[in-house]
Amino acid sequence: MRFERAAIVGVGLIGGSLALAARRAGLIGEVIGIGRSAANLETARARGIIDRAVRDLSGVEPVDLVVLAVPVRSTAAAMRALLPHVRAGTIVTDVGSVKGDVVAAMAEVLPADRPFVGAHPIAGSERAGAGAADVELFHGAPCVVTPTAATPRAAVARVRALWEGVGARVHEMSPAAHDRALAYVSHLPHVVAYALVRALDDAQLAALSGGSWRDATRVAESKPELWCDILLANAEAVIAATDAFAAQLTALRAAVVAGDASALTALLEQATAAKQQQLRAAPLARGATEP
Amino acid sequence: MRFERAAIVGVGLIGGSLALAARRAGLIGEVIGIGRSAANLETARARGIIDRAVRDLSGVEPVDLVVLAVPVRSTAAAMRALLPHVRAGTIVTDVGSVKGDVVAAMAEVLPADRPFVGAHPIAGSERAGAGAADVELFHGAPCVVTPTAATPRAAVARVRALWEGVGARVHEMSPAAHDRALAYVSHLPHVVAYALVRALDDAQLAALSGGSWRDATRVAESKPELWCDILLANAEAVIAATDAFAAQLTALRAAVVAGDASALTALLEQATAAKQQQLRAAPLARGATEP
Repeated sequence: MRFERAAIVGVGLIGGSLALAARRAGLIGEVIGIGRSAANLETARARGIIDRAVRDLSGVEPVDLVVLAVPVRSTAAAMRALLPHVRAGTIVTDVGSVKGDVVAAMAEVLPADRPFVGAHPIAGSERAGAGAADVELFHGAPCVVTPTAATPRAAVARVRALWEGVGARVHEMSPAAHDRALAYVSHLPHVVAYALVRALDDAQLAALSGGSWRDATRVAESKPELWCDILLANAEAVIAATDAFAAQLTALRAAVVAGDASALTALLEQATAAKQQQLRAAPLARGATEP
Repeated sequence: MRFERAAIVGVGLIGGSLALAARRAGLIGEVIGIGRSAANLETARARGIIDRAVRDLSGVEPVDLVVLAVPVRSTAAAMRALLPHVRAGTIVTDVGSVKGDVVAAMAEVLPADRPFVGAHPIAGSERAGAGAADVELFHGAPCVVTPTAATPRAAVARVRALWEGVGARVHEMSPAAHDRALAYVSHLPHVVAYALVRALDDAQLAALSGGSWRDATRVAESKPELWCDILLANAEAVIAATDAFAAQLTALRAAVVAGDASALTALLEQATAAKQQQLRAAPLARGATEP
């Protein structure tokens, strides 16, 4: 199940961490890095994340795996540029935080003999770049794999094995189910974090903050261009999740306005009960973040 | 500046941690614990947080410090019950997350010769009780002290010294300024966390969550009765902060609905810039949480 030679397109936190972890696990032989930033690729080479950096695959021996680890709305274009040098049988996968758009676009871009298997490791942090890559990043983290009816099962099995091999807990579901779920558990808390830091108009007040502010706003350091992409690529589900959240906010606000201690306590008790249920369903992954 | 004998009313996470830290620093001699739960007081005694537990101060040698560490809306009643046994000159303080209501109520309850100095250490966690008390809890954490024009400066100095002695960075401001600030940096992220966990109607989806969900919802485990109290005691400022946040949420949602990448990127870039400014203003305290 080993890939002899993989091209990682976008050697950032996620692509870089996957290369590090897959190499350590013996799941990938040679790693070719492709990216926009020469400085970042040099960091990746110096850290042993990639063996060499190239502009495209024209002068490179055939790869049997392509990992697209670029912002979601650049995924199809990145693949289109690479396609002339990707031979039949090569498995293509990605790591994007939104799957519906990407899976549909890849079905257009790729011929059937170069199967695409969408994947989304739910790990990461507000840090970025090859310098932040971490061989342990995916240990215990969820990874959603999103085949369609047209995806060859053998290709799905190889991508699953790759993620399981780097320690992830693989879930398989449709692109649409992924996107609805992630809108709640990832995209919404990012929107909330951005809105929170924007709401605080005096930055000096942060001197009075403690853990709740720090944790609720941590991901507001995430890269704007990356998150603009994610939110727009998953707009419908993000809007629905935001509206569901806003309705709950309105309900809590109304109980505060009414000064209704029993109504407010009931809302908060239901919330703590929901949180307990969610903790039982959630992984024990420590330090796992996203996108 | 040492207190010979202190009564801690409510030996929970905050009261218990203060007793532990102040004793270690030699700032308090004997500690008398008062609380509703015999089991919790026994835990506190067994852990060396208090020397003895009493129902009230009637049979106890005079104390020179009273620390009220009960839910904010119980503070005045707790003081009223204690008052017959608190002699002139005793300094009274609290640890509550809301100051305006408490400071006003204490001015009614206490005669002028028993000065009240409001305080709010911004530390804590979603954990509760004497079992969670931590001698290092306040190290590097902000603590707001909220005297009024009527508060004797000597009493303010002693309460400041107590908090500085356990490692807190003391800020002094009016009760109203405290309440407006904390509505943003503490009460709002709690409301947001409660609303987030309520919005996720399928707890199983939490299996797909990573760090952003975990961090944004951590404080939704906080005690409902405690937070009902805080939100209602600071209702006006909490509503204003919630509305400011909701306006930012609406702006972000509108950019997503419009599919306007440049508007959305601009909003997110302003947010990351604000977050950077806030980080520069914020303490380097690690692990400090609240209430």
